[in-house]
Amino acid sequence: MADIQRIIDAIAEEMAAAETRGKVADYIPALARVDPRQFGIAVVLADGRTFSAGHADTAFSIQSISKVFALTLALGKVGAELWRRVGREPSGSAFNSVVQLEHEGGIPRNPFINAGAIVVSDVVLGSADPRETIGDILRFLRYLSGDQGVVIDSEVAASEAATGFRNIALANYMRSFGNMERVEDALNVYFHQCALAMNCRQLAMAGRYLAHDGRHPETGRHVVTAIRARRINALMLTCGHYDGSGEFAFRVGIPGKSGVGGGILAIVPGEASIAVWSPGLNDRGNSLLGARALERLSEATGWSVFNPPGAA
Amino acid sequence: MADIQRIIDAIAEEMAAAETRGKVADYIPALARVDPRQFGIAVVLADGRTFSAGHADTAFSIQSISKVFALTLALGKVGAELWRRVGREPSGSAFNSVVQLEHEGGIPRNPFINAGAIVVSDVVLGSADPRETIGDILRFLRYLSGDQGVVIDSEVAASEAATGFRNIALANYMRSFGNMERVEDALNVYFHQCALAMNCRQLAMAGRYLAHDGRHPETGRHVVTAIRARRINALMLTCGHYDGSGEFAFRVGIPGKSGVGGGILAIVPGEASIAVWSPGLNDRGNSLLGARALERLSEATGWSVFNPPGAA
Amino acid sequence: MADIQRIIDAIAEEMAAAETRGKVADYIPALARVDPRQFGIAVVLADGRTFSAGHADTAFSIQSISKVFALTLALGKVGAELWRRVGREPSGSAFNSVVQLEHEGGIPRNPFINAGAIVVSDVVLGSADPRETIGDILRFLRYLSGDQGVVIDSEVAASEAATGFRNIALANYMRSFGNMERVEDALNVYFHQCALAMNCRQLAMAGRYLAHDGRHPETGRHVVTAIRARRINALMLTCGHYDGSGEFAFRVGIPGKSGVGGGILAIVPGEASIAVWSPGLNDRGNSLLGARALERLSEATGWSVFNPPGAA
Amino acid sequence: MADIQRIIDAIAEEMAAAETRGKVADYIPALARVDPRQFGIAVVLADGRTFSAGHADTAFSIQSISKVFALTLALGKVGAELWRRVGREPSGSAFNSVVQLEHEGGIPRNPFINAGAIVVSDVVLGSADPRETIGDILRFLRYLSGDQGVVIDSEVAASEAATGFRNIALANYMRSFGNMERVEDALNVYFHQCALAMNCRQLAMAGRYLAHDGRHPETGRHVVTAIRARRINALMLTCGHYDGSGEFAFRVGIPGKSGVGGGILAIVPGEASIAVWSPGLNDRGNSLLGARALERLSEATGWSVFNPPGAA
Repeated sequence: MADIQRIIDAIAEEMAAAETRGKVADYIPALARVDPRQFGIAVVLADGRTFSAGHADTAFSIQSISKVFALTLALGKVGAELWRRVGREPSGSAFNSVVQLEHEGGIPRNPFINAGAIVVSDVVLGSADPRETIGDILRFLRYLSGDQGVVIDSEVAASEAATGFRNIALANYMRSFGNMERVEDALNVYFHQCALAMNCRQLAMAGRYLAHDGRHPETGRHVVTAIRARRINALMLTCGHYDGSGEFAFRVGIPGKSGVGGGILAIVPGEASIAVWSPGLNDRGNSLLGARALERLSEATGWSVFNPPGAA
Repeated sequence: MADIQRIIDAIAEEMAAAETRGKVADYIPALARVDPRQFGIAVVLADGRTFSAGHADTAFSIQSISKVFALTLALGKVGAELWRRVGREPSGSAFNSVVQLEHEGGIPRNPFINAGAIVVSDVVLGSADPRETIGDILRFLRYLSGDQGVVIDSEVAASEAATGFRNIALANYMRSFGNMERVEDALNVYFHQCALAMNCRQLAMAGRYLAHDGRHPETGRHVVTAIRARRINALMLTCGHYDGSGEFAFRVGIPGKSGVGGGILAIVPGEASIAVWSPGLNDRGNSLLGARALERLSEATGWSVFNPPGAA
Repeated sequence: MADIQRIIDAIAEEMAAAETRGKVADYIPALARVDPRQFGIAVVLADGRTFSAGHADTAFSIQSISKVFALTLALGKVGAELWRRVGREPSGSAFNSVVQLEHEGGIPRNPFINAGAIVVSDVVLGSADPRETIGDILRFLRYLSGDQGVVIDSEVAASEAATGFRNIALANYMRSFGNMERVEDALNVYFHQCALAMNCRQLAMAGRYLAHDGRHPETGRHVVTAIRARRINALMLTCGHYDGSGEFAFRVGIPGKSGVGGGILAIVPGEASIAVWSPGLNDRGNSLLGARALERLSEATGWSVFNPPGAA
Repeated sequence: MADIQRIIDAIAEEMAAAETRGKVADYIPALARVDPRQFGIAVVLADGRTFSAGHADTAFSIQSISKVFALTLALGKVGAELWRRVGREPSGSAFNSVVQLEHEGGIPRNPFINAGAIVVSDVVLGSADPRETIGDILRFLRYLSGDQGVVIDSEVAASEAATGFRNIALANYMRSFGNMERVEDALNVYFHQCALAMNCRQLAMAGRYLAHDGRHPETGRHVVTAIRARRINALMLTCGHYDGSGEFAFRVGIPGKSGVGGGILAIVPGEASIAVWSPGLNDRGNSLLGARALERLSEATGWSVFNPPGAA
């Protein structure tokens, strides 16, 4: 396992040299100005050892990766009731499509497309004050990562709010079907959670509970039940990369959730929590080099939920 | 592991007593007259031991489960070239939808929806005689299951052909985009492969290579490479239950492929190949009790690709 | 032509006795409580003579009929520039669908579906104060109808705003494509124009310019050019009844625009401006008895744009 | 009215000089090799006088214009029963789309999109021999045009059949919903009717009944009833140019039916039957110069169903 460092060093080297790096998200200035030449990776193993390479200590906007943590909070709050308002199927469409919503009565297909995540934010918010909810989410991420350095980038949050017309449309659209309670406040929460700034090391630490039956590895306490951790991983595998989820499962074979900031959180149950980051995106909106790095890592380690256990 | 027999006996008992059993497919007489009160299950472990319960020796029409084996043949024949004609993403629509085809230039979303499977049949057929190709497929299944008793139900094949207007439409539609070579002959192959009649025991035997890195456990020879076996499992997990694939992954967490005859083939990598059968279908067209039985089996054994390896 | 009175008396009698009357819109209280047993009709001929029957003096919410007048104002303001932001094709979908918007880059299909009308309101608003714009629209309708009694029902406007989540969604959705300037203010204008309260007599008077080459018959001044009047009529014929426009053209053969309040404005070029009203709607959201009354009127008078001129 | 000749001479001259001429259909060789520099126009007035200019005597493939005549035959055969199998609404999609069919249970939106026309062919065919039906259609066109020179281009018919995979798909798809009786034979009829070869003069003659209350002007006998003639005109206006019908109604204001061979039949009720032809198509699949020529003709003559009767 000392190999892990060698493996990710080689991966970081390959990614540093890659010529095609995808296209950086440019819908808000704070994302558009990120240098596309960056690549970072961090791996936290079951025994707590941590490995990292490249720009693993550079904070980036985790964006949609936050949907995993918000889902965890929502399940803790309302349990399986959540599934009356959000589905569990891959969408077969872009991350911000409204078509399926119209055909399916305002019930988003899964909690990882924007519409679904906005409903999840509405659930996490409940009847609370939005600012308190945002504070709760921030504290949750600090607890999960064991790092008080996790922050919300307020410039990003403000930009998201100022340009998020399609998300505003999705929320109002679901409201017209009765599937939103507090449009404005829930969007406020949503825009802030997307603006969480974390580095690869922090993100990999934050994902540990998903690799360990739902337990926080330091406290031993359940963040979620084992069965829910397993199911969140299932959702990440089938829906975590928007309309590129099938491809990611096919190539990498590890539950993962990507964000438009270029990050991906990937979970190998029982083995490792992994975060990669490279800002350039492929045509499905997922990190081009991030996905390739995880494919390399899977090849080198045998990590894949589709491999026989001893194959690693 | 002697527990397996006890577990599946209990499952068979529960399923025998179930009141809601779904709706038997009725688009052709041979399927419509199947007794919905039947339930069978067979499990083949890595060490070769086999367990079964219920109507595990009653043959049924495997229908779409055959798509897994046809995909295996097509990959053996043209390799990754196949992916120029078929995608690898969940469809987000019904098994026989044409909408996505129109929006995506005649390239079906994955090899497990009908359109994709028809393209796969076209590939398996190549320039051969359709009858020979059908014979090849039958011999392949006999080889995989180690059982010469596997047959093709010619009444079913004839009924499929006589009523398969939507499949004929799909094939011609893809032909209009240049994504079919031999419409009539490929459909002939497709209708025959869907009419394969197997029982749970045979089907579970036939699926062993997918649980064992692509190797036929008796001959030790590779049916497909290890990486392809893993990727076929990935496709089964993300796309194997049509528009209920996400739900199946969420509840059961095991790669599986269902057929409208009520069968499901499920693969636990490194552990087991499983076949269940109960003719009644849920509203997504998957076996209602079959899926429930696999959920029970997963709960009782810990089998799930999302569980840490030692959790079983 | 003294026959007109006899014809519409007979129609009013038939409609009063009709048993199936459709379903009154119930999305806001002010519409839901309208008595479905009402029916009114008014006809203004080229020579200025006016005929009416039934509840022709009862004010109702003209709702989407206002889109015709808003379109007239928008064309007067920016001319053909308007067509860079709105199409001229029937939609093939429901009045408030977002599907087409997603497939066509935020350009609504025509100015008579909600999305199109909201863009038109944005154009009419321009850089003005919304309250002034609402005042302008009200004055325009009073001028067209020659009646200072036309008002805006502020309860209806407030209800529309309080429940108009889908329209808010449409506006924000188009904004995300850059096809809206002032979402909130334009919606404010839109909700108020839909709340115009007029009776059949006023509405038929207001429509006269469309029957007369765009001229106000009293002042002789052009409200719009002759070619634009003709083209507004064309749009009414192809798009004026949402996804029931083809049926209306087929049965009635007269350009018409319906509203969810149960009114229809219909124009016979060179002959007559007609308003009918009955609150019950058919399954396409158009006045059930209103359309039937116009069909009867067309049969009795020969009025139809598809009839040879002398056929009347 | 002696002006008509001068008007169409000027139009023919303008069209001969046009630089942008659209793109000739190239899906079959017989259409692809047609010289795009051709333009023809013929006008038959109510009094029988005929005017023509340009290549008015050059035969071309009338293609979808034949749908008007097939609809006439089908209405004569089964009357309003037809509307249980075909709708009367503009489609909002391309001429050969299957999406709407899937959403609307196999009922095509109108008789002028391909799917609708194939159902119409199935109705015209009934239980007859396809060759006899094709003969009947040919005789019908000869009768309408008063010209025995109308023929079916068998090379075109054969090419249509050999490449018509999408139409075969549409027919089988509707068959799967029970909305086709005889797939193969109806397609045979359809491919032959599309291959009718006529020149502008013959086509304008053939359309006379639609301008004259359904009567054949020479025999005085009703080809269809007056009300059906009017309704066919209504369908031509709302659905005659596929997804460019709204635009054509807006610009030209005359019921018209276009074909992919570059022809358009246009009807001015009570006034004239007009045929234009120029092989180059716009992006909606309608004759680019043909539509422009009709717009010019409408401007010069005042012919438009949206003009007051005396405006001409």
